[in-house]
Amino acid sequence: MSNEVDYSIIQEADLKQFAKSVFKNIGCNDLDAELASDVLLSADLRGIDSHGVARLSGYVRLFNKGRINTKPDIKLVRETMSTGTIDGDMGLGLVVAPKAMEIAIEKSSKAGSGWIAVSNSNHFGIAGYHAMKAIKHDMIGYAMTNASPLVAPTFSKERMLGTNPICYAIPAGKYQPVVIDLATSAAANGKLEIAQRKNLEVPEGWIQTMDGNKTTDAHGLKHGGSLLPLGSNRELGSHKGYALSALVDIFSGVLSGANFGPWVPPFVSFLDVLPNLPGKGLGHFLGAMRVDGFIETEVFKNRMDQWIARFKGAIPVKADQPVIIPGEPEFKHFELRIKEGIPLINAVSEDLKSLALQLKLEHPF
Amino acid sequence: MSNEVDYSIIQEADLKQFAKSVFKNIGCNDLDAELASDVLLSADLRGIDSHGVARLSGYVRLFNKGRINTKPDIKLVRETMSTGTIDGDMGLGLVVAPKAMEIAIEKSSKAGSGWIAVSNSNHFGIAGYHAMKAIKHDMIGYAMTNASPLVAPTFSKERMLGTNPICYAIPAGKYQPVVIDLATSAAANGKLEIAQRKNLEVPEGWIQTMDGNKTTDAHGLKHGGSLLPLGSNRELGSHKGYALSALVDIFSGVLSGANFGPWVPPFVSFLDVLPNLPGKGLGHFLGAMRVDGFIETEVFKNRMDQWIARFKGAIPVKADQPVIIPGEPEFKHFELRIKEGIPLINAVSEDLKSLALQLKLEHPF
Repeated sequence: MSNEVDYSIIQEADLKQFAKSVFKNIGCNDLDAELASDVLLSADLRGIDSHGVARLSGYVRLFNKGRINTKPDIKLVRETMSTGTIDGDMGLGLVVAPKAMEIAIEKSSKAGSGWIAVSNSNHFGIAGYHAMKAIKHDMIGYAMTNASPLVAPTFSKERMLGTNPICYAIPAGKYQPVVIDLATSAAANGKLEIAQRKNLEVPEGWIQTMDGNKTTDAHGLKHGGSLLPLGSNRELGSHKGYALSALVDIFSGVLSGANFGPWVPPFVSFLDVLPNLPGKGLGHFLGAMRVDGFIETEVFKNRMDQWIARFKGAIPVKADQPVIIPGEPEFKHFELRIKEGIPLINAVSEDLKSLALQLKLEHPF
Repeated sequence: MSNEVDYSIIQEADLKQFAKSVFKNIGCNDLDAELASDVLLSADLRGIDSHGVARLSGYVRLFNKGRINTKPDIKLVRETMSTGTIDGDMGLGLVVAPKAMEIAIEKSSKAGSGWIAVSNSNHFGIAGYHAMKAIKHDMIGYAMTNASPLVAPTFSKERMLGTNPICYAIPAGKYQPVVIDLATSAAANGKLEIAQRKNLEVPEGWIQTMDGNKTTDAHGLKHGGSLLPLGSNRELGSHKGYALSALVDIFSGVLSGANFGPWVPPFVSFLDVLPNLPGKGLGHFLGAMRVDGFIETEVFKNRMDQWIARFKGAIPVKADQPVIIPGEPEFKHFELRIKEGIPLINAVSEDLKSLALQLKLEHPF
C-alpha cells in the first residue's frame, strides 16, 4: 500500500469550478451552484474530506432519484422577532442552510439573537460552514442537522439516529475563532470509511454488531450493525451521547416539521425513503447570537484570547502533544490547502472523473 | 455493609422546611430561602442526591467564608430584545439562576426567545430545575453552568474545567417532557462519591492519575488526578466531551464576565479562590424558546409524543432493558419520592443534624 499513488493534488479553484459545473448541470442557477460549491469546498479545505467533493456524485444520484429540487422556492413559513421556520422545498441543504443562516443573522442583528428551524432539506455539508458565517458579524454561530439513521440509542440495536452534528463558532481576537464541530456518535462515519479503505480494525466502542455485541470490524455497518453514541457504552456515558443526538433530532426534525429518528431520509440514493413519513425531508437548526448582546465585543475577544492562551498552556500529559483548541486542526488544514491544493484520494478523483464523463463536463482529474 | 441502616426516610416537606430555616439563618429573606430550598429539594426528589440537601452545609461554609452574599442586588447589566447579562452580586446560584431564568422566559414571551448570561454567581443546584421552568410556558428551556475545575482537557493532566452540565427541557403531550441533563465529563462527581463511600473501583475511563495514566481508583482525585471528559480517551472521542465542556465554560464564563477555566471558584470552602481572577464568581447561561415561534404548539406536542413512542419502542439489545427517554428515570424518582419521602444516607443526615445543632435550628433527623 504505497501512499505515493494514493492521491493527487488539485487546486481549490479548479475543484470548485468543477463542482459548480456539476451543480449547474443538474439545474442550479449560477448563484446557487456557486454557493453549494463553496460549502462543499470548505470541507475539503478544512480537512473534513468525507463531507466535501467526495459527496458530489451522491448529490447527483439523489437528484436523479427525484429527491432534490434544484429550483427550490425557499420560504419562511413562521416567525417571531428572534425565531422562525423555513421550508426548504426539497432544495440542496448546501443552498437551503446558508440562506436560513442569513435569516438567523438578520434576526440577530435586530433582536440580539436569531434561531431558524429548517424542514424539507437535504444533507447540508459541514455544520462548521454555516455556524462560521456568524463570526464576521461578531456573532456566535450555531448549526446542527439530523442525518441518515446509523446510530443506536443506549440499550438498543436499532439504527434510530444520525451522527447528528452540533457546531458552535465563537469569535476570538488575535487567535482564530473557536469552532466546536462534533458528531454526537463516538466516531463520525468518515473515520469508519477511512478504516474500511485501509482494511484496518476500528477501536472497540465505535460500532456494535446487529445483535448489539462488541466488534472491531470496520465493515460492521454493512453486516447490519450500528454506530454507537459518544460515550460508547452505558458505563462510560453513552446515554449522554444518545441524549445529545436526540436533542439534535428534536430541534432539527420535530421542531421544524421535518422527519426525525429512523424516518430521516438516507443520503445514499440506493436506500429508499420509508413509508408514512412524519414530516418533510431532513431538518436543520441554525442560530446566531450577537456577542454585544451580552458583553462589549472587544472585551469578549480579549477574554477569548485569554481563554485560548490558558488552555493551550494547560500542562500536557506528553510534552510533545499540547492541548488542542477546538477548530485549530481545521484552520491548519485550511491554511495549507488554500496555498498548496487539496489532496484527493484516487477513489474520489476516479469517481469525479467518471461523473464528468457521464455529464460531459470539463474536469481537472 | 447492611443497606438497612444506611439511610433513613425524611418527608419532602420536612426536609424543605429545614433547608429553608438554614437559608433564613444565614440571612436570606423568606422568598429567597423558599426558592433556594425548592431548587435543592428538586434534586433530592428527582434522585440527583449529590446536588440536593447533601450540599446544604457546603453553602453555609461558603457563606461563612464570605463567598456568598445572601442579600444580593441582582441586576440586568446589558440587554437586547432577546439577550442579556445579569450580575448576581455574589448571590446564591440557587436564587440568582431562577431569577435569570424568569427574565429569559419574559424575553421569550415577547421576542420568541430569551438568553441570559449570568456572572458573579455560585453553584446553582441541578441544571434541570432551571431549564424545566420553561416547560409550563410551552417553551424549550436551556441551562448550563461552569463549575469547580476537576476535568482535564484531552492530552492534559491539569484540572481546567468543571463537570459543566448542559440541560435542555422540551415539552411533550401525553408523555413527560424530555429533559436532557448531562455532565460533560464521562462521570459526574456524584457518581464518584458513591463509589468512594462504598470503596468500589470505578470503570477505567472516568478518571486519570496526576500523571495522566489510567486508574480505577475512586479516590484518584484526592491524589491529584482529574476527571476525564465524556468520551474518556482520544480514540473514543474525549476531544468532543472536552469541546462541549469548553462551550459551557465559554458561554457561562467568558461571555457573562464571570471566571472561566481553572479560575472558576471551587465549591468546597477549604480551597481558596485563585489570585488575579479574570472575572466575577462563576457563571451560568440560561435560555428559553417559544415552541410556537417555530411550529404550532399542539402539533409539536403530538410530534414529540410520536418521537418518544418510537424511541421507547426501539429494538432493545436485551428484552428486559428497553430504551430510556432522557429524563424518564428522574420523573420516576420524583413520583415515588414525593409520595414516600426521600431516602437520606446516614452520612448526609448526620451532617445535617450537626448543622442544625450548630445553627440551633429545629430538625427532622
